[in-house]
Amino acid sequence: MRFVMTILLAIFSTAAGHAGEGMWLPDQLPKIGESLAAAGLDTSPGTFADLTAHPMGAIVSLGGCSASFVSPQGLVVTNHHCAYGTIQFNSTEDRNLLTDGFLAASPADELAAAPGSRVYVTLAVQDVTPQIVSAVPAGADGTARYTAIEDAEKKLIAGCEATPGHRCKVASFHGGSTYRLYDQLEIRDVRLAYAPPSSIGKYGGDIDNWMWPRHTGDFSFYRAYVGPDGQPADPSPDNVPYQPKHWLAIGTEGVEAGDFVMVVGFPGRTNRYRLASEVEDAIEWSYPQRVERRQRSLDIIAAETAGRPDAAIAYAATQSYLNNSLKNGQGMLAGFAHSDSVARKKELEAEFTTWIAADPEREAAWGSALEEVEEILEEKRAHRERDQELSSIKYNQLLSVSMRAYRLSREREKPDADRQPGYQERDMARIRSRIARSARNFDARVDMALMQSTLEAYASLPESERLLVLDEWFGIGTDVPASDAIASTLHSMYMATDLTGIDDRMALLTADRAALEASDDPFVRLAVAMYDTNLTLEAEDEALDGQLLEARPRFMEALLAFQTDRGVEIYPDANSTLRVTFGNVQGYVPQDAVIYLPFTTAEGIAAKATGREPFDAPPALLEAIAAADFGPYASDEIGTLPVNFLSDVDTTGGNSGSATIDNRGRLIGLLFDGNWESMIADWDFLPEVTRSIHVDFRYTMWVMDRIDHAWNLLEEMGVEPAFRPTGDGGN
Amino acid sequence: MRFVMTILLAIFSTAAGHAGEGMWLPDQLPKIGESLAAAGLDTSPGTFADLTAHPMGAIVSLGGCSASFVSPQGLVVTNHHCAYGTIQFNSTEDRNLLTDGFLAASPADELAAAPGSRVYVTLAVQDVTPQIVSAVPAGADGTARYTAIEDAEKKLIAGCEATPGHRCKVASFHGGSTYRLYDQLEIRDVRLAYAPPSSIGKYGGDIDNWMWPRHTGDFSFYRAYVGPDGQPADPSPDNVPYQPKHWLAIGTEGVEAGDFVMVVGFPGRTNRYRLASEVEDAIEWSYPQRVERRQRSLDIIAAETAGRPDAAIAYAATQSYLNNSLKNGQGMLAGFAHSDSVARKKELEAEFTTWIAADPEREAAWGSALEEVEEILEEKRAHRERDQELSSIKYNQLLSVSMRAYRLSREREKPDADRQPGYQERDMARIRSRIARSARNFDARVDMALMQSTLEAYASLPESERLLVLDEWFGIGTDVPASDAIASTLHSMYMATDLTGIDDRMALLTADRAALEASDDPFVRLAVAMYDTNLTLEAEDEALDGQLLEARPRFMEALLAFQTDRGVEIYPDANSTLRVTFGNVQGYVPQDAVIYLPFTTAEGIAAKATGREPFDAPPALLEAIAAADFGPYASDEIGTLPVNFLSDVDTTGGNSGSATIDNRGRLIGLLFDGNWESMIADWDFLPEVTRSIHVDFRYTMWVMDRIDHAWNLLEEMGVEPAFRPTGDGGN
Repeated sequence: MRFVMTILLAIFSTAAGHAGEGMWLPDQLPKIGESLAAAGLDTSPGTFADLTAHPMGAIVSLGGCSASFVSPQGLVVTNHHCAYGTIQFNSTEDRNLLTDGFLAASPADELAAAPGSRVYVTLAVQDVTPQIVSAVPAGADGTARYTAIEDAEKKLIAGCEATPGHRCKVASFHGGSTYRLYDQLEIRDVRLAYAPPSSIGKYGGDIDNWMWPRHTGDFSFYRAYVGPDGQPADPSPDNVPYQPKHWLAIGTEGVEAGDFVMVVGFPGRTNRYRLASEVEDAIEWSYPQRVERRQRSLDIIAAETAGRPDAAIAYAATQSYLNNSLKNGQGMLAGFAHSDSVARKKELEAEFTTWIAADPEREAAWGSALEEVEEILEEKRAHRERDQELSSIKYNQLLSVSMRAYRLSREREKPDADRQPGYQERDMARIRSRIARSARNFDARVDMALMQSTLEAYASLPESERLLVLDEWFGIGTDVPASDAIASTLHSMYMATDLTGIDDRMALLTADRAALEASDDPFVRLAVAMYDTNLTLEAEDEALDGQLLEARPRFMEALLAFQTDRGVEIYPDANSTLRVTFGNVQGYVPQDAVIYLPFTTAEGIAAKATGREPFDAPPALLEAIAAADFGPYASDEIGTLPVNFLSDVDTTGGNSGSATIDNRGRLIGLLFDGNWESMIADWDFLPEVTRSIHVDFRYTMWVMDRIDHAWNLLEEMGVEPAFRPTGDGGN
Repeated sequence: MRFVMTILLAIFSTAAGHAGEGMWLPDQLPKIGESLAAAGLDTSPGTFADLTAHPMGAIVSLGGCSASFVSPQGLVVTNHHCAYGTIQFNSTEDRNLLTDGFLAASPADELAAAPGSRVYVTLAVQDVTPQIVSAVPAGADGTARYTAIEDAEKKLIAGCEATPGHRCKVASFHGGSTYRLYDQLEIRDVRLAYAPPSSIGKYGGDIDNWMWPRHTGDFSFYRAYVGPDGQPADPSPDNVPYQPKHWLAIGTEGVEAGDFVMVVGFPGRTNRYRLASEVEDAIEWSYPQRVERRQRSLDIIAAETAGRPDAAIAYAATQSYLNNSLKNGQGMLAGFAHSDSVARKKELEAEFTTWIAADPEREAAWGSALEEVEEILEEKRAHRERDQELSSIKYNQLLSVSMRAYRLSREREKPDADRQPGYQERDMARIRSRIARSARNFDARVDMALMQSTLEAYASLPESERLLVLDEWFGIGTDVPASDAIASTLHSMYMATDLTGIDDRMALLTADRAALEASDDPFVRLAVAMYDTNLTLEAEDEALDGQLLEARPRFMEALLAFQTDRGVEIYPDANSTLRVTFGNVQGYVPQDAVIYLPFTTAEGIAAKATGREPFDAPPALLEAIAAADFGPYASDEIGTLPVNFLSDVDTTGGNSGSATIDNRGRLIGLLFDGNWESMIADWDFLPEVTRSIHVDFRYTMWVMDRIDHAWNLLEEMGVEPAFRPTGDGGN
């Protein structure tokens, strides 16, 4: 009956129904103590409210991924896919860490992370709403509002970053209702301590991506280093491990079906408070056109790289991105097709409107808010086809680097503080590494074919939506058929340009305005020619965005008041700031007559194994599984070694690598993906089917102990290795 | 808790473990009474042993499909896909029964089934082993044995078919250990009474084929007609409904998870007693080469029909067949990759060999049996590449019809009784309908391209495996590259032939030998030229088959003795004769962390609906589902209307349309498919995952009653329509 009870618990998580929805700001937790208790938290929610105390102080950002300290010596655990770039960077033909994995015998053997790798430790968070709001002059129009807010943000960031080694940002919440300043320590000497082979860390690959049942060992370990003075420093052998104030203890016994779990990390972006019209827009326009564009680009790349292995390799990463984006778009559309998201939004908006109208004070304060937002959105939509085509054109590598360089040269004419965000000195390292990366993924023939297709789509816009500068440059709108005119112009541009190589592109970034304006490179000349038009369009955008920055907060203020009136606590949309989400370990019913259990098992790894990537589980792993040699890491309840598990916590991109902790704040897993049905969770959380996917830390420990002998790291985390031969003090 | 208990029952069918394996001869049932009782049968197994009593007397064959009588007026229920040809045959541009479905308001409105449609009612079964065995002269070699058995079979059939309206066949069991003569009434006036639209009857189409969860309403109704004298007659308005002695009653309350179910029908062919070496052969040679060949043919058809809609339509059925065969081959290989079939076979053979060796009497009787079979199989394998290439060549339509016609002309020179089986007068109707059908699916360019590819593969055989007549005809083995020589010969053949149309092909079938030998059609000339070689190869085959007909029964006799000694009752491989299989309604675990429940529900139809084929559920159906308007057809246990269900009964192709009956012999469903994991069940039954898929008769009744108003047929089956307006006596 134990197995039966496990299944029942798995399916019908009795503890808390569906607690999952909500990416909470830590300071909100005390307000939702009842929900937390109902989900199974048996300690005070206040424990999790202080960002600088345990356990929240152990949570760090890698910029794009989340992670956590797991030892007093700066050991950081995150996902294998978050450390992938570093593993790739350190791989050579002779020593392929992707296929072999890597374990540093001692800290001295650790490998430098990929250039640009960072660990961000949150030091302080401050509400800066008054400073921002007071910066906006009374009666400001859209443009003035936009500029005033941007200037105020830049000033706050500059002040915060005056302390060396700090990286700061201002985040806006609820569409601009409140603002917070995040002050983070930017650790820039990061090293790789341990990564399993991809045949464990990426087991299932793209085929299993977004899928359940899942069997991926998506974990790796970094270590953060600082200068001998304890301050962030450039990579150096003199540096010492960073000693965090807080680190997570390991919950070695793990969790079972129905148990409380909490995920702490940096979710990137959600759109949960968008209007029904915005969701409809996504369903009817954005995603369909994205799917079509991605498919078109993939077809072009396939055709142009056929029989050209070098070009194929150059575009592998681009194809992977396009495929992922295509799959995401298709998943979104499939998800929306089965959801009543729009209908529920409309119902809520109707109730909201009724609630406003029921009270003259509400009517006075917020009566026009929803309508105003709708009007601005309508204006923004007026040119969306044009905007989409232009952004596709700017995706062209040669034009993009030229535009970036010329804009930089113009911005550099101003004092750093006055420059456009994204073009300040603090941004240069990121710009350079992005351009270096894209130059490595380039082939002129493919680039030109993509640009030809993009420009043909642009040329089919009505004349009123086209740009004079582009029409003239490419001879569009003349008697010559647009495709011929474009082809002939592009051909001569690609013949004449010098920007196909990485060095010439990097040189462009430091060239001054005069040099660029005198350049005879056709892409630079086009970038110069487009500059004024681009600024005009940007100003039009900012004017509308500025209006939205007034209207949207007013609407959100009203919506918050409405929800508070109904006794509903509201969490803000994700914006890459630290969030907490909690829920329970549980499976779900993906479709009629099918039940997904919440735990996969080691035996499931063996069942999927084919010997071929991505199901190329290492023989040693398969032998240990066949022998059921799981030591103390097996679960009595599950009857074997758990590998991955599902919960109903609310996560999104950026949460990757997040610590999954139990109700005593101990690390018991790592968040690494969402299920297929969670794809539309960026817009709408569906409690019955939205699930997050975690690697069970019992599997992590077993692989480290039994397979990879990472006994040093286990000990460092306070875990006694069960498979270390007696009397052997190290590996 | 009721729902919970349902799920548990579903997963862990407590009743009988896994009873499923076994396609039993009805007279075997009394011998396995214990297993039947354990599975939940609470009546005497003897009830099911008499083929001419109730309920077995109600079971009929349609030739390729199974069916059953469900009223005293000759009403027959089978699968929609078994009546598909008839539905298609009666469809016109104005009245498309495939899309609209069909319901005869009264018997007078019923539609003639497609030409060649038959209902076969089993009248008697007789063990004819003594007659066959005694016909073989002592000391006969392979050829003599083969011919003697063939002659004895033809004589038995001719005697049986001397009664007008009877169709007879001799079936061999256990590789020729025993023989039975089946005497069937051949009803040849068959009419369509009711079929739902394809959007119900074929819901899910090829996408869901072999898959679970499934939501297909795969049912249709025929009626059998005979002459006023009660004897089979050609279709005529004077005919009257056939009055069967037995028909199935309907089990209106259905079955639930764990319940006993039995399936009675005519499974086509299984290979459960093949040797380990034969299974290895299938895995390593037959299926891989089939997959490769099917893929190659599909590629050629795709390339040659691109941009030619007429040709594409002509090859739609061929493509469908090739795709299905490809999917089957791939499924077989995938299934074998996850099974230990060969290892278990080898173990069994080792135990068998030990058992033989343990007893001098056994050793004397059977000591060499296994080895002898292996030796003959080895000989048969020696030319398998050649045999495969030749059978591909004969797949060419023009050559095939020419060879068939010339062989017919030669066979017709003998008395009918002496002709080769397949070329007797009793075979002519089938030959004609097959040739007419293939002529409709023809395009010369595609046919030639397929032949070119096939001949090139043939040409790559070593010279010793090629045929002189083919080499000379196509100029293979000369200085000219084979592909050029073949292309030029084929080109002139297709230019000169008259056989592209249906009339010329049909005329060929009645031409005499002299006319054919004087023909200047290149395909006829090639057929004549190949005749002697074909006969030689056929004789070689028959000699080996004749040897096998001695060795295999001896091995099977030994195997049966071995199994009997171990207390195991053995069922014979399927051979299109009437069989019974029984088991329980139950789901399964298809992979780690996934549970398949045994029942799908009406809500699942709605969840799959996209409005586009094959998920184009009719709006009226979706509305009734949304309203949960299920009347008495819903199940309390399941909580809604069941649609399809799984059981572990043992079925294969030919079982389609079989009655699924409960433990009181009442009809509660129709077998229509197996799950993906059952594909390799033709070779190996895997109790944990091999499942049959049934349409729940509660769904059938609900569609007939609530959606299609087939109240007349429900009443005829003794079911009171729940949705018929009061006072309305008909539809």
